[in-house]
Amino acid sequence: MEQQDIGNVLQTNLEHVKELLEKHRLVETLTHSQETPRHELVESLTHRQNVAELRNRLDKLHVADIAYIVENLPPKDRTIIWQETSLDRRGDVLVELTETVRQQVAAALPREELTQALRDLDPDDLSYIADDIPEEVLRETVSALSAEERSWLTASISYPEDMVGHYMSGAMFTVRDQDRLEDVILQLRAKGEIPSHTDKLFVLDRRGLFKGVLPIPTVLLREPGLKVHDVMASDVVKFRSNDKVDEAALAFERYDLVSAPVLNERGKLVGRLTVDVMMDHLRESNAEDMLRLAGLSKEEDMFVTIWKSARNRWMWLTVNLCTAFIASRIIGVFEGSIEKLVALAALMPIVASIAGNTGNQTTALVLRAISLGQLNGKNVFYMVRKEVGISMMNGMVFGVIVGLFAYVFYDNWALGLVICGAMLLELLIAAGVGLAVPITLEKLGKDPALGASVVITATTDSTSFFIFLGLATIFLV
Amino acid sequence: MEQQDIGNVLQTNLEHVKELLEKHRLVETLTHSQETPRHELVESLTHRQNVAELRNRLDKLHVADIAYIVENLPPKDRTIIWQETSLDRRGDVLVELTETVRQQVAAALPREELTQALRDLDPDDLSYIADDIPEEVLRETVSALSAEERSWLTASISYPEDMVGHYMSGAMFTVRDQDRLEDVILQLRAKGEIPSHTDKLFVLDRRGLFKGVLPIPTVLLREPGLKVHDVMASDVVKFRSNDKVDEAALAFERYDLVSAPVLNERGKLVGRLTVDVMMDHLRESNAEDMLRLAGLSKEEDMFVTIWKSARNRWMWLTVNLCTAFIASRIIGVFEGSIEKLVALAALMPIVASIAGNTGNQTTALVLRAISLGQLNGKNVFYMVRKEVGISMMNGMVFGVIVGLFAYVFYDNWALGLVICGAMLLELLIAAGVGLAVPITLEKLGKDPALGASVVITATTDSTSFFIFLGLATIFLV
Repeated sequence: MEQQDIGNVLQTNLEHVKELLEKHRLVETLTHSQETPRHELVESLTHRQNVAELRNRLDKLHVADIAYIVENLPPKDRTIIWQETSLDRRGDVLVELTETVRQQVAAALPREELTQALRDLDPDDLSYIADDIPEEVLRETVSALSAEERSWLTASISYPEDMVGHYMSGAMFTVRDQDRLEDVILQLRAKGEIPSHTDKLFVLDRRGLFKGVLPIPTVLLREPGLKVHDVMASDVVKFRSNDKVDEAALAFERYDLVSAPVLNERGKLVGRLTVDVMMDHLRESNAEDMLRLAGLSKEEDMFVTIWKSARNRWMWLTVNLCTAFIASRIIGVFEGSIEKLVALAALMPIVASIAGNTGNQTTALVLRAISLGQLNGKNVFYMVRKEVGISMMNGMVFGVIVGLFAYVFYDNWALGLVICGAMLLELLIAAGVGLAVPITLEKLGKDPALGASVVITATTDSTSFFIFLGLATIFLV
Repeated sequence: MEQQDIGNVLQTNLEHVKELLEKHRLVETLTHSQETPRHELVESLTHRQNVAELRNRLDKLHVADIAYIVENLPPKDRTIIWQETSLDRRGDVLVELTETVRQQVAAALPREELTQALRDLDPDDLSYIADDIPEEVLRETVSALSAEERSWLTASISYPEDMVGHYMSGAMFTVRDQDRLEDVILQLRAKGEIPSHTDKLFVLDRRGLFKGVLPIPTVLLREPGLKVHDVMASDVVKFRSNDKVDEAALAFERYDLVSAPVLNERGKLVGRLTVDVMMDHLRESNAEDMLRLAGLSKEEDMFVTIWKSARNRWMWLTVNLCTAFIASRIIGVFEGSIEKLVALAALMPIVASIAGNTGNQTTALVLRAISLGQLNGKNVFYMVRKEVGISMMNGMVFGVIVGLFAYVFYDNWALGLVICGAMLLELLIAAGVGLAVPITLEKLGKDPALGASVVITATTDSTSFFIFLGLATIFLV
């Protein structure tokens, strides 16, 4: 990390490991093809050197960097990296992988090896990856935990993936409100370590109820004789275990939090949320947003088989196919008009194309407003009014341009007027669809981004063909 | 924040403030329309009560929450909120606003009022919002700073918006490597405060060069007599002021950082990056990604005028219009064929629609790989091979389905074969375009997402019309 920027570091690690793998592979091929024992011995020596160098390199890397390398290698090389990663770090590498790759690695490993890798993980990490681990392995791992850890893990897993409870950690440091700061320091020293991302300790009263937080700077800076109760902050951001995790991530960003307490329904402290987990969540859900917009049901590993990837895309392509058939039949109804005025065939995709773009622009803005928590009550009304206004204005501007284009190429002013009118009407419809699709999905509690762009383009295609060809049939044919 | 989930809290604040504003407005209308002095007196009393209640409410809110309210109100109400926010918090509210709203608010305020609001901001915050403040106001504010702050601010502003230097803070706590931990605690107490998001102190040697970091837990837990040099961590993630901020944000996520040192080219400590700023950046750039994909040049404030918003969308709509004209002219070339076989007009949008969807799916995956830093060297080759494979497979599957559809509706097996072949060819092209557009933009150092969906749909439209109508003209007409 000394000489280059941080992006290059990842890249350099990856290239280096790839080189080592290349040598590794070369030697393996040689060893298998050569016959002479003498040769074999030499090769196997080189081989062992290469392996040692690879292992050495991996030992020096952060587990997140090993995970990055695993994600960027094809499956057969992943196995080699896994085997050369030291036993006690394999579980951590598994935690750092993206969901899809983790599922694959976990499925490909011998059950025993996986169980061994999971042995060193704490209940937080286990809960985080539980969904991606074969059930039997998970059961075996859980049975090795202490009773307390086991009950914590069971509780945490039972929360659905969109709730704070699923993301909270059990690692936290609590102090009593009647203690003095010097007692707190003694307790910290006695424990010998502080959970990572601890910027505040949680304060409980005698009955174990949550009272507030004690920031670490307060412990460091204030008079050691002061009572926790007198220096703690009681007006703090706290979460319920059944809060939505998306809201929690926004709150972390809004209030610049590093950690925050999680309470259950009865106000009892049950866990802790930390900024690293929220940041992970934010980035992952954003990466998925763009995919869902295009109608990809879930993230794809770059090295998954073509067959699997193709199927992942079928659902929305099939939806798209059905809507395309509908659009095609709508045009079919007007085949008589097209036969009489073939210019209609050449002009109809213009209306459809601009309408599709307009609808998608509107949806992009609605989705952004939803993700920023801005779409509520009266704002929906504002947004509708504004989008309708914009599309009327754009409909007039682009309607006139397209009308002129039609007039110039076909020397037919009536055709120009018809396409101008169709454009105006269709852009209003496009704005309506672009607003209605995500807002309706959101109100129904569905994912507002999923396949939105497919649905919008489909609707604007069909309606624009219908409106343009319909108007043309009435006025021109 | 006691009884409801965190999303509702924002909502409740907003509703409450809106209610107060409603009363405020009602009274204003009354006061202006009534003539009787008696009445006026009563109204003005109620008015004053309302204002007091509003101010009271705002005083209790976090500045980020006030910013949320401002963003969710139309411009005229924004002014009222601004006026009732206490003087010393106005600057902080400004910092918390999104860029577009901040620019508007700053432009709408009297210059003097703005200068006053900026007076209490530290150089970090000033640097963060500098681009959105009228130049004269900025100059006046800067001139009020100390010489040291001024030079820091000038340096920070001079970094472009995509570099770490633009985002770093000057607020950090440094210690000497030869000090003992007890000295460090004394220094901290003497200073009396620690900058927010300080999970580690930065260690300098006698000559002021950066040596490593001293985690706060170490200060708290280890023997006070130990030397900093012996307990500090020297192998730490650090950034250069000219690193890309996107890479830095990913590194924060990857290595679970709370804060990290920023060095200049000569290894001198020049600032500090913190996780709250990185998280802000991550969320904002993600929100913009979706907009840019749809061809919206920048984020839009919900309350900006229709006229301004309409123009924001014109650039890509105009691009789209040009490409639609090209597609239309391609169809125009084949008008003779369409006149002879009008079914072509009804079938051609099916090919275009599926191709557009395929291209956008591929692009979504490429963009995701780019944003995760996975697209490099050999991986590009893997991705190309895979996408081509998938599109060949999907081309065959959907080609056969569409071919059957054409055969069933038009009882013409040759037409079915032609559209099947066109589908296969076109999906290969769509995959190629979906790969080429973002990868080329990225290699050219341009934003790979900007308008990608517009360009892809345009290309797949034109090529699919050309291939389908071309094949039909050769084999059918």
